[in-house]
Amino acid sequence: MSEADFDVLILGAGSGGYACALRAAQLGLSVGLVEKGPLGGTCLHVGCIPTKALLHAAEVADSARESEQFGVRASFDGIDMPGVNAYKDGVVARLFKGLTGLIKSRGITVIEGEGRVTGPREVTVDGKAHTGRHLVLASGSYSKSLPGLEVDGERVLTSEHALRLERVPASVIVLGGGVIGCEFASVWRSFGAEVTIIEALPRLVAVEDEASSRALERAFRKRKIAFRTGTSFQSVKSTDSGVAVTVGVAGGEQSVIEAELLLVAVGRGPSTAGLGYEEIGVAMERGFVLADERCRTNVEGVYAVGDIVPGLQLAHRGFQQGIFVAEEIAGLDPQPIDELGIPRVTYSHPEIASVGLNEVDAVETYGADGIETVTYDLGGNGKSQILKTAGFVKLVRQKDGPVVGVHLVGDRVGELIGEAQLIYNWEAHAEDVAPLVHAHPTQNEALGEAHLALAGKPLHAHS
Amino acid sequence: MSEADFDVLILGAGSGGYACALRAAQLGLSVGLVEKGPLGGTCLHVGCIPTKALLHAAEVADSARESEQFGVRASFDGIDMPGVNAYKDGVVARLFKGLTGLIKSRGITVIEGEGRVTGPREVTVDGKAHTGRHLVLASGSYSKSLPGLEVDGERVLTSEHALRLERVPASVIVLGGGVIGCEFASVWRSFGAEVTIIEALPRLVAVEDEASSRALERAFRKRKIAFRTGTSFQSVKSTDSGVAVTVGVAGGEQSVIEAELLLVAVGRGPSTAGLGYEEIGVAMERGFVLADERCRTNVEGVYAVGDIVPGLQLAHRGFQQGIFVAEEIAGLDPQPIDELGIPRVTYSHPEIASVGLNEVDAVETYGADGIETVTYDLGGNGKSQILKTAGFVKLVRQKDGPVVGVHLVGDRVGELIGEAQLIYNWEAHAEDVAPLVHAHPTQNEALGEAHLALAGKPLHAHS
Repeated sequence: MSEADFDVLILGAGSGGYACALRAAQLGLSVGLVEKGPLGGTCLHVGCIPTKALLHAAEVADSARESEQFGVRASFDGIDMPGVNAYKDGVVARLFKGLTGLIKSRGITVIEGEGRVTGPREVTVDGKAHTGRHLVLASGSYSKSLPGLEVDGERVLTSEHALRLERVPASVIVLGGGVIGCEFASVWRSFGAEVTIIEALPRLVAVEDEASSRALERAFRKRKIAFRTGTSFQSVKSTDSGVAVTVGVAGGEQSVIEAELLLVAVGRGPSTAGLGYEEIGVAMERGFVLADERCRTNVEGVYAVGDIVPGLQLAHRGFQQGIFVAEEIAGLDPQPIDELGIPRVTYSHPEIASVGLNEVDAVETYGADGIETVTYDLGGNGKSQILKTAGFVKLVRQKDGPVVGVHLVGDRVGELIGEAQLIYNWEAHAEDVAPLVHAHPTQNEALGEAHLALAGKPLHAHS
Repeated sequence: MSEADFDVLILGAGSGGYACALRAAQLGLSVGLVEKGPLGGTCLHVGCIPTKALLHAAEVADSARESEQFGVRASFDGIDMPGVNAYKDGVVARLFKGLTGLIKSRGITVIEGEGRVTGPREVTVDGKAHTGRHLVLASGSYSKSLPGLEVDGERVLTSEHALRLERVPASVIVLGGGVIGCEFASVWRSFGAEVTIIEALPRLVAVEDEASSRALERAFRKRKIAFRTGTSFQSVKSTDSGVAVTVGVAGGEQSVIEAELLLVAVGRGPSTAGLGYEEIGVAMERGFVLADERCRTNVEGVYAVGDIVPGLQLAHRGFQQGIFVAEEIAGLDPQPIDELGIPRVTYSHPEIASVGLNEVDAVETYGADGIETVTYDLGGNGKSQILKTAGFVKLVRQKDGPVVGVHLVGDRVGELIGEAQLIYNWEAHAEDVAPLVHAHPTQNEALGEAHLALAGKPLHAHS
């Protein structure tokens, strides 16, 4: 295949695809990057970045609303949704400009249009076939719905619609209490809406440690965000003023909840249908592309990265996989990625962040007698008291072994996960962290205190 | 000395003293803790904690003032200083209660009153002598002034007075552009005052990397915080409405600046005068107690911790030294502390944080050809764009060696120094950090990007 157009041909310019393109180009490979939308994909345009902008506007609103308790005289007079959107779109536009410049400066060939795999390592766009010595599938994901639940973009929305909303709804039902559902619930509540979350699983953010879910539920209760866990969606119909959603609990009892809008946040499915993956023999399962720990599919020379690969659907996992594949193709023999070492953040108010195993999974791996945990309450952390936020740092370690899980709850704790992931990924013992000093007063100091406690020498905590 | 009253007798219950007491008690040693004021010392009562509460109130004020650019309609109507003080005092009271409970629960004997060393390992309080097998000097520090500059607590203040102020002054001159001066300047500006900083050295926060000083200066200029560097204090006199301060520059030119108040923030001196240290033969220098890397003075069985020991005057250095001394006395043979590995944070708007060597000191240590630096601009960091903060991550490494300095500027970057200090203290190479993934979009991701760049594989940055 020496006559291929590119060393690396990539289908999809989201986080996984563009990271692969950037790294491959840096390593001297020629790169073709196929994208039907704008460069940057879901994360930049309809995912991480715009939702976190909304969440920051929500923080600004909460800060103004609660200013009196800090001695600041300010009044909160409402949300100017066109203003919020201008701010959000401004952030996206600036980062988009940066990314476009970067892609261009590295000499990557961007092929605009809808691509379809039409042969081994061949992608056709608008009737023209492009070939690569290597093909990287990076077509991303879309907002899923449920059977019988039709998204109309008016009353029944996905997160993409929600991001374009030009008003603050009076009331919203959020279907799904995972990361996306909890983030939107948090934003809308801060913006003044009545919010009810419906979650089929027994708790919110159910993949997190149970303690984190419970803490979020307590905080949401205080914020008057209603939620019904263990409750499943049955049907929705239009009313004069919005939607009436019928939900049911396991026992069979049904009830109807009304609101102006219904947000469907039941997860994201892989965008793989009709892209020709099966036709070249790529092994798939429930629409996902199967890949090994080196991101290789079963087809020689064909890789897959990002949300189409089963696992955490996170932009930074895509970055990491994209970089990995570029280095793999360039023959650098990179270390496989430990998926558990990828940090996870829910940017609600309060935030949740974690890396490694939660307690239940740790017990499953090491046995109930094989682990130890310690929980440090942010009540003892000066900076958290200053911020008036509640929460904790929970550590899970293998008995006499390394820290295998870190779980955080509290406003702004997402920033502490950088340190936590180093501890996890470097297989540090509590005793390696405990003697090192954290700046006072910071929130990251709570990580230090938790490690001191785990090492048997708590400082600002009862032993 | 088997007849001593305590295994460990500690003079001063600030950060260094109480940390030593807590750890010593935990290790089964009997502890006497002498304190003339409330437990917790400068940090808790007139230092870190109350100033950071003011800084957070300032953040709340700025957030309300700037809410429009985030699409939030809020109006800033001024500062309610009694409200700010109630909030600040509430945070202090809560932490004080926690500390008091902790001290009590560990069975530490608190000896209230002014203590003075009256013999080898003997402290007399109100006429009663107490003895210890070991004596730990932890008497802390006080706000210094300059020769001829009289602090009256009305128009000429130290930070202790400033913390009790019941109004927002219309204008302030801050004498000293170090950490304390810059933090108060930042608070008062956010509260609406006209602020001018006078600093004798050529730049603000002169111990930081020059790039950090320059970035702070740029930010302060934008915030209309005036500053005159390379300018020294000459004299002050009262006017009808406040103070008139005469300052001079190196050339000899003098000028007069008027304001309502003058804050003297020229550093903190060791509180050691008249405490009997010299009398038992403790070696001292300019009022500081000389101690070796194991916190031992030249007198057998007498240790010194915290602000009385030359070096960084930081609460968390005190914690670490206090814990160290307790473990040393208990025979645990702890590892000496690398002072360069202690993180430093200036909590102004924007924040500055650092650990390890700045560039100039690194060049001095390793030679100009022996180091490499990389600077990652927060303009490329999504979360910083969302927060609308400018700044950078600057890394200094020994050529082909470990990272020896991390320098951060930007709102909230103080929280990133937790991860940075692990990298420094674990002597990590850029290549150890680069393959590990940081959550997107966070500010700590900028640390990841900077390490990717330093490892020669920048992601969201031009190579």
